[in-house]
Amino acid sequence: MAPPVMAARRWLEGVTFPADRPLLNMSQAAPVDPPPDGMRAAMAEMVQHHEAVHLYGPVLGLPELRAEIADQWSADYGGRVTPGQVAITAGCNQAFCAAIATLASAGDAVILPQPWYFNHKMWLEMSGIDTVALPTGDDLLPDPDLAAALIGPRTRAIVLVSPNNPGGVEYPPALLAAFRDLARARGIALILDETYRDFHSRAGSPHDLFADPDWDDTLIQLYSFSKTYRLTGHRTGAILTSPARLAEVEKFLDTVAICAPQLGQHAALWGMRNLATWRAAERTEILDRRAAIEAGFPRLSGWTLRGAGAYFAWVEHPWKIGSDVLAPRMVAEAGVMLLPGTMFRPSGGTAGRPEGSTGQQEFRIAFANADRAGIGTLFDRLSEWAP
Amino acid sequence: MAPPVMAARRWLEGVTFPADRPLLNMSQAAPVDPPPDGMRAAMAEMVQHHEAVHLYGPVLGLPELRAEIADQWSADYGGRVTPGQVAITAGCNQAFCAAIATLASAGDAVILPQPWYFNHKMWLEMSGIDTVALPTGDDLLPDPDLAAALIGPRTRAIVLVSPNNPGGVEYPPALLAAFRDLARARGIALILDETYRDFHSRAGSPHDLFADPDWDDTLIQLYSFSKTYRLTGHRTGAILTSPARLAEVEKFLDTVAICAPQLGQHAALWGMRNLATWRAAERTEILDRRAAIEAGFPRLSGWTLRGAGAYFAWVEHPWKIGSDVLAPRMVAEAGVMLLPGTMFRPSGGTAGRPEGSTGQQEFRIAFANADRAGIGTLFDRLSEWAP
Repeated sequence: MAPPVMAARRWLEGVTFPADRPLLNMSQAAPVDPPPDGMRAAMAEMVQHHEAVHLYGPVLGLPELRAEIADQWSADYGGRVTPGQVAITAGCNQAFCAAIATLASAGDAVILPQPWYFNHKMWLEMSGIDTVALPTGDDLLPDPDLAAALIGPRTRAIVLVSPNNPGGVEYPPALLAAFRDLARARGIALILDETYRDFHSRAGSPHDLFADPDWDDTLIQLYSFSKTYRLTGHRTGAILTSPARLAEVEKFLDTVAICAPQLGQHAALWGMRNLATWRAAERTEILDRRAAIEAGFPRLSGWTLRGAGAYFAWVEHPWKIGSDVLAPRMVAEAGVMLLPGTMFRPSGGTAGRPEGSTGQQEFRIAFANADRAGIGTLFDRLSEWAP
Repeated sequence: MAPPVMAARRWLEGVTFPADRPLLNMSQAAPVDPPPDGMRAAMAEMVQHHEAVHLYGPVLGLPELRAEIADQWSADYGGRVTPGQVAITAGCNQAFCAAIATLASAGDAVILPQPWYFNHKMWLEMSGIDTVALPTGDDLLPDPDLAAALIGPRTRAIVLVSPNNPGGVEYPPALLAAFRDLARARGIALILDETYRDFHSRAGSPHDLFADPDWDDTLIQLYSFSKTYRLTGHRTGAILTSPARLAEVEKFLDTVAICAPQLGQHAALWGMRNLATWRAAERTEILDRRAAIEAGFPRLSGWTLRGAGAYFAWVEHPWKIGSDVLAPRMVAEAGVMLLPGTMFRPSGGTAGRPEGSTGQQEFRIAFANADRAGIGTLFDRLSEWAP
């Protein structure tokens, strides 16, 4: 399987876009702007005068950053997180790989709700681990009872992403708690990827899993600094789990990475300490873009909006044509680039419907990279287009 | 197995060093100074004004850096390397992991000369791949005939490191060519890790493997910018192989890293274009430190110098006590930190000698981090010490 983001890039080959109608690329969740001025100035100062940003650091990350995460998480989630339960990784994908390396090996199985984040699926495949698809219904929420029935003797973990990539939906706290209870009862791990946490529509804590004093016997949380602080190029993420599991994570990171890049870690620490107000404004802006998606969506006749939140919307188009067929045509004909649902749900299964009845007609819209005007353009172009 | 570098850190616990006799740490190959002023200034400018250093880049690396490597390698090695045969990784360890991921899976086998670089061994172990130890003799050079006898139906690669970590020895061009011929004849890969290439004592090309127009059917070269440009904290390495294998490398890197950190790549490019003179002076300095090791070594009564080159010396001590037992005592009693040979040669085998007769009495000295005065201090302390 070719990585989807790379496959999508090939649709651009041989296509030219008029100067007054450039490509509208909503295929990837990638900030288009650099970090704010203050952070860039702080980073430039570090590069010039703080030698540590150029040298090796501890495998599990900058101690001050681990401590800052522990403090802020404890406050934000209303729980108890210690620095010894936090490690820094070179991005959140690496946090996922490290978590899996400590849990499962070839022949084991991991449960992913469908539609899934394709990089999770690719890593499992490369590691020889079976991916068990947990179908979701029209609301895109996974069902703990369905999941319970899929747990076998070699199942090692359930992986949830909230706010969801690709679906955009925010999993309710009670649903997350139910999955935690299920995982704990069956002696497997619950991996919760909260890359998009800082754009959640709930003002307070998105869940209360950290309020459980024994959270680290089951929960493995993944986090990313990439979107929140626009640090995608610096590769900075985090993993929160038990100190015992972190000792295993350490071996994986030592061989595949030695350590996470230092400058990104120092920048993340600076951001956590100095950018609370800016971060809140960014969240407001992203929530406003989400509102623009919801307000404008009725302009698309026959389309259905299944989910919208954080960076993504998940939509169904009205034509009986596979979205994988339509996606390259949409680039060439409508000047809009979206990833087809088939990349996130290759088997096409949807709970409560016959196999193959949907998935084929879905798209993910990574709307967060566009402002209100861009989202208006999206609806202009799609409402005027038909295959 | 605990990662050796982390195990060594534990020897420091509870030990205090007098202010006039601080620890002499020659355990790790890690530059202690940041990049030169000009490079730091260039990096600060990039952080402030070049947005690309903050954003995602292509999975296989910055195109300009791939092209620069292809150009300089073609000239330096007298061969033909194209940009499509080069990818950038988040450090050379990740290049190794990526190479292995394209070659072998659980149950396969890879041949490593002993003593080996322990991170290679750890990654193979984590991947369920058998490590086949190729013994070396007193000169630390691997023997292609011995290697030939170790190749089985599931052997996928031979891994060489030159200049060698941990042994310090430089493999002669004819030896490298013999291993290339062996690998090609048996249809397996030759992975050649040249992390320490820029400190080789040969003024010209260290080998002629790239002069072979079909080099990429067998050779996979790994390289690191970490030591040469003092960029260890930025995680920048490279892998050179066929475009077909790079397509597989791309899948691995996409899931475990997304992309190598951008700033390190831009800094490496700047360094390749602007620091040739500085780099030559650094090489001269490291070669001078090697000369200081060779000149001072006779002061150590009963010790034997087996190899010295690039960053490392490989030595045998005179006592019938395992170096793993001596290493922590040497920290506490002599104020010198070296890694014991047992970390690089756990099975203790040496070609032509009974199993266990050496390995136990060896140390690696990472001398490159110390100047001539520091190397003098090393000999002062070791010559006055006995267990």
